[in-house]
Amino acid sequence: MYRTHTCGELRKEHIGTTVTLAGWVQTVRKFGSITFIDLRDRYGITQLLFGEELNKALTENPFGREFVLQVKGLVSERTSKNPNIPTGDIEIKVESFTILNKSVTPPFTIQDDTDGGDDLRMKFRYLDLRRNAVKRNLELRYAVNRAARNYLHEHQFMDIETPFLIKSTPEGARDFVVPSRMNPGQFYALPQSPQTFKQLLMVSGYDRYYQVVKCFRDEDLRADRQPEFTQIDCEMSFVEQEDILHMFEGMIKYIFKAVKNIDYTEKVERTTWEQAMWEYGNDKPDIRFGMKLANLKSAFQRGGKITAHGELINGAGFGVFDNAESVLAIAVPGCSEYTRKQTDELTEWVKRPQIGMQGLVFIKYNTDGTLKSSVDKFYNEEKLKAIAAAAGAVPGDLVLILAGREERTRKATSELRLEMGRRLGLRKENEFRLLWVMDFPLFEYAEEDNRWVARHHPFTSPKPSDISIMIDNNPVIEHAEKYLEHPYSNIKANAYDMVLNGNEIGGGSIRIYQRELQEKMFAALGMSQEEALHKFGFLLGAFEYGAPPHGGIAFGFDRLCAILGGSESIRDFIAFPKNNSGRDVMLDAPSTIDDKQLDELAIALKGGDHE
Amino acid sequence: MYRTHTCGELRKEHIGTTVTLAGWVQTVRKFGSITFIDLRDRYGITQLLFGEELNKALTENPFGREFVLQVKGLVSERTSKNPNIPTGDIEIKVESFTILNKSVTPPFTIQDDTDGGDDLRMKFRYLDLRRNAVKRNLELRYAVNRAARNYLHEHQFMDIETPFLIKSTPEGARDFVVPSRMNPGQFYALPQSPQTFKQLLMVSGYDRYYQVVKCFRDEDLRADRQPEFTQIDCEMSFVEQEDILHMFEGMIKYIFKAVKNIDYTEKVERTTWEQAMWEYGNDKPDIRFGMKLANLKSAFQRGGKITAHGELINGAGFGVFDNAESVLAIAVPGCSEYTRKQTDELTEWVKRPQIGMQGLVFIKYNTDGTLKSSVDKFYNEEKLKAIAAAAGAVPGDLVLILAGREERTRKATSELRLEMGRRLGLRKENEFRLLWVMDFPLFEYAEEDNRWVARHHPFTSPKPSDISIMIDNNPVIEHAEKYLEHPYSNIKANAYDMVLNGNEIGGGSIRIYQRELQEKMFAALGMSQEEALHKFGFLLGAFEYGAPPHGGIAFGFDRLCAILGGSESIRDFIAFPKNNSGRDVMLDAPSTIDDKQLDELAIALKGGDHE
Repeated sequence: MYRTHTCGELRKEHIGTTVTLAGWVQTVRKFGSITFIDLRDRYGITQLLFGEELNKALTENPFGREFVLQVKGLVSERTSKNPNIPTGDIEIKVESFTILNKSVTPPFTIQDDTDGGDDLRMKFRYLDLRRNAVKRNLELRYAVNRAARNYLHEHQFMDIETPFLIKSTPEGARDFVVPSRMNPGQFYALPQSPQTFKQLLMVSGYDRYYQVVKCFRDEDLRADRQPEFTQIDCEMSFVEQEDILHMFEGMIKYIFKAVKNIDYTEKVERTTWEQAMWEYGNDKPDIRFGMKLANLKSAFQRGGKITAHGELINGAGFGVFDNAESVLAIAVPGCSEYTRKQTDELTEWVKRPQIGMQGLVFIKYNTDGTLKSSVDKFYNEEKLKAIAAAAGAVPGDLVLILAGREERTRKATSELRLEMGRRLGLRKENEFRLLWVMDFPLFEYAEEDNRWVARHHPFTSPKPSDISIMIDNNPVIEHAEKYLEHPYSNIKANAYDMVLNGNEIGGGSIRIYQRELQEKMFAALGMSQEEALHKFGFLLGAFEYGAPPHGGIAFGFDRLCAILGGSESIRDFIAFPKNNSGRDVMLDAPSTIDDKQLDELAIALKGGDHE
Repeated sequence: MYRTHTCGELRKEHIGTTVTLAGWVQTVRKFGSITFIDLRDRYGITQLLFGEELNKALTENPFGREFVLQVKGLVSERTSKNPNIPTGDIEIKVESFTILNKSVTPPFTIQDDTDGGDDLRMKFRYLDLRRNAVKRNLELRYAVNRAARNYLHEHQFMDIETPFLIKSTPEGARDFVVPSRMNPGQFYALPQSPQTFKQLLMVSGYDRYYQVVKCFRDEDLRADRQPEFTQIDCEMSFVEQEDILHMFEGMIKYIFKAVKNIDYTEKVERTTWEQAMWEYGNDKPDIRFGMKLANLKSAFQRGGKITAHGELINGAGFGVFDNAESVLAIAVPGCSEYTRKQTDELTEWVKRPQIGMQGLVFIKYNTDGTLKSSVDKFYNEEKLKAIAAAAGAVPGDLVLILAGREERTRKATSELRLEMGRRLGLRKENEFRLLWVMDFPLFEYAEEDNRWVARHHPFTSPKPSDISIMIDNNPVIEHAEKYLEHPYSNIKANAYDMVLNGNEIGGGSIRIYQRELQEKMFAALGMSQEEALHKFGFLLGAFEYGAPPHGGIAFGFDRLCAILGGSESIRDFIAFPKNNSGRDVMLDAPSTIDDKQLDELAIALKGGDHE
């Protein structure tokens, strides 16, 4: 070893011992004839003192920031201690040193608040990774990984590796494919998830499986998506939904404790998809704060159980409300004194293309009990009071109302709620609130193809009570515009998402394990029998040999780490991420390959902007 | 849960409790009006007793092997206990049962000695995985995985995930490539190993890294190679070779203890590459037995330090020996009484194309001290005795001698040694002998291109003492036939392989960490400066910003598991392996993909046997 101790290790009790350290030069400070160096490694920082007697050696072998040094010296008590670092009581009186490697000046500072822009830091990712902020993220990632594995191990789960070179069966997202040289004209695909393999492992009797595993999706990258990402992938046999919810809220609580030292003792709340859409306008609500949506008038009708009638607002001559499919309100606490400037700014905010509304109606419910509104020429104070009450407002609140087409309005109100929560500091970084969202619709309707698509994936089972609806009805949609009246619209999935602070961190389902039902599912999705056999014959076959009831869940590992680390961006928690065009700018990948490689693979490039 | 207990859990102390079990029907045995069922799950087997009162239900719902059952009943003491299974004291008096799923008759028996052939078991891998033998292999694999992670964690290693979609830089083996849809004409490559990334992590200061990670090589598959395989990949900073040897023999010993309960207290032996080649004829010797090679005459001369002169055998008129480049002997203990039939059979064995020798010379060193040989017309008894003594033989041994071209003869003698070791039972499945092989040549000479190739990989450092040889000499080989006289032939690598029972289970090296030396290496391999920058510019760049001395190792995880499991085949230790053509016969992958997919990727198939 080039060292006897690390740079984070020495304490008072080491005083008087001679040690050898190795690390990077963080700072150089000269005071007259002596020089202080902060030497850095993964474990910490230790102060080095170069006395006068080393000045000649320092002049002959000058070094600067990020040089790699090896020093030998005596651990000594500091005269001015630094209580902010664990090694702050001591310093090393350097006796001799060796420059192990030099460094040119880094293109940005290796500090928490670096002066490096995003592009530069990505190109020099190996330097960015030196920064404490990034290092802490990767340490947190490892801690989460380790905690998840320990929990799953304790609960009899087995890590079983599934293959990466598999068969292309695009359903939903596009596969990345890999041309096979040994089988010309044929391709492997990279897995979008180990879904079918983990189900086969259940058929094989492995009972409890897990894997922390890379998955691949060739999607057009939205912000903060990566073409390769990591899942904590799990599956269990002989379970019902309740068993899975219990097992995996346990895992997340275990991770909270192990990684953040948080005792999450509260019961994990639950809601249905329908209730989440009704109350929050989206299926992954942030429940750290209330400000629930009031449905003053709503077309939201999946399942058809909840409706709002609009009596409060209709017929007052205000066309925007009268003609709207949906009118949704939130009561923003303590904001009744917003100025005209502030409400104007909010109006602009909802008109931005990302939100896309025409305008914003507000009611100020003043602390003195009076009300003032942008629509008070249509509604008298009594009416306004009733509307505000319907929105759950109390004196001091500001009621914000959006109106328009159902889907857009619901989404916009949800966004507005999150924005107001953020502005009011209600989305606290260090508060963690888990939520199970359940009872999703099994199917969604794909307008362009006039067919059903699986909301989760084609292996998700309907709720036990809905299986007969699926079996007994013909999936064909005869009247596209009336798809909501088709019985398949009412089938609920035996599926669940785990939501943390408004982010979906995991999702899973109880699976279909009967060949007949699986075949019906493939047919419902518009797959011919031949196609189903070609793509998933192995799974249908497996279901004939004693497939047990089973289900599972997959957690988005990158996202989970980001949220636990208090960040919005998963990129900060990936050692070598790709940019939004799917490029690794450090490697300069993807890149062209040799013609020889193309020839061996028996493929040619089309389009010709390549030679 | 569909069960209160597993099928491996119930013991005497559970007698009298009512339980629910779920699992697979292993066997059905009828005795008059009662029926015994062995119910199986991952954890074990429990005997079920269906009394007379259930006969009606059994008739109405008949079941057979591999059906999935749920049963409720009373844990009862068995009248005839089965001491061979942990649950052998009890049985379940079944009160009610449910068939959870049916099974058609499996295509082979789900037993240790199955009647299923290799192809059938691969096609129905999900059934093969049910067999105890395969399950034990995957359990062992998980135990090794877990032990390695625990050891590395305890030693401050961090699991850091490196990317799978990287840049193609073929050096040695072929890359699998992945066309990029978003960057038409460009390709990612799948990593052959995370080599450069782990080195970057050392440059970034992560100090100790590990990963259990899939790697990919598009090679023509020899027997027992897989296009995707798993490595335990590790790297450390501020270390010298000795530190790495110590750390990782510790890991393997830890695994022995955790997985096999073996205390490997012996010192791990070491040898140099040269010595291994000289004594065993190969660089991964099985040292569970001796029978070392005697170099009666040898052209083996890499490094030029060891030579044999052939005085004992030359000039006796035996042309085979006189004209041979190498004459190598082994003394097979206790086989002096081999019959003519047996020595003839051995002669046939060395003449097989896989071995490729012209013949075999033997000397029987009889227990009475006399000698008999197939070449006694050329050598008198005194001479024979001297040769036998040179081969290390004692009375009772059979000396086997091969002669011919150096490389083939050495390889053949090595194979013959292993074969005799196997036949004599000296390669014991439950004996484990570790060996470090060190001091490999840094370069090999590639005849077809008249250039140097890196024996390990281009990032391996020369021995510190040989760095100047590398820097100070021009790598160009002017006289191809005299490449052994080029100074580069004498450069030793700072590299080491870990060998277990004659298998290379891990290999690594101390890395180059200076830009100048790395550039010299690329140049030595015939790479232009431009090419080196295009392929590895990121690494050369990283070396300019304070790269620490570092080194590492990668273990072949599949192979390690196979050896620990006492098997020759890694396929038995992979859940979903590919066959020797790189096909997954269960999935039927690789396969053709849609024209739409090809269009989106802007590639076309060549060769035209595809529509």
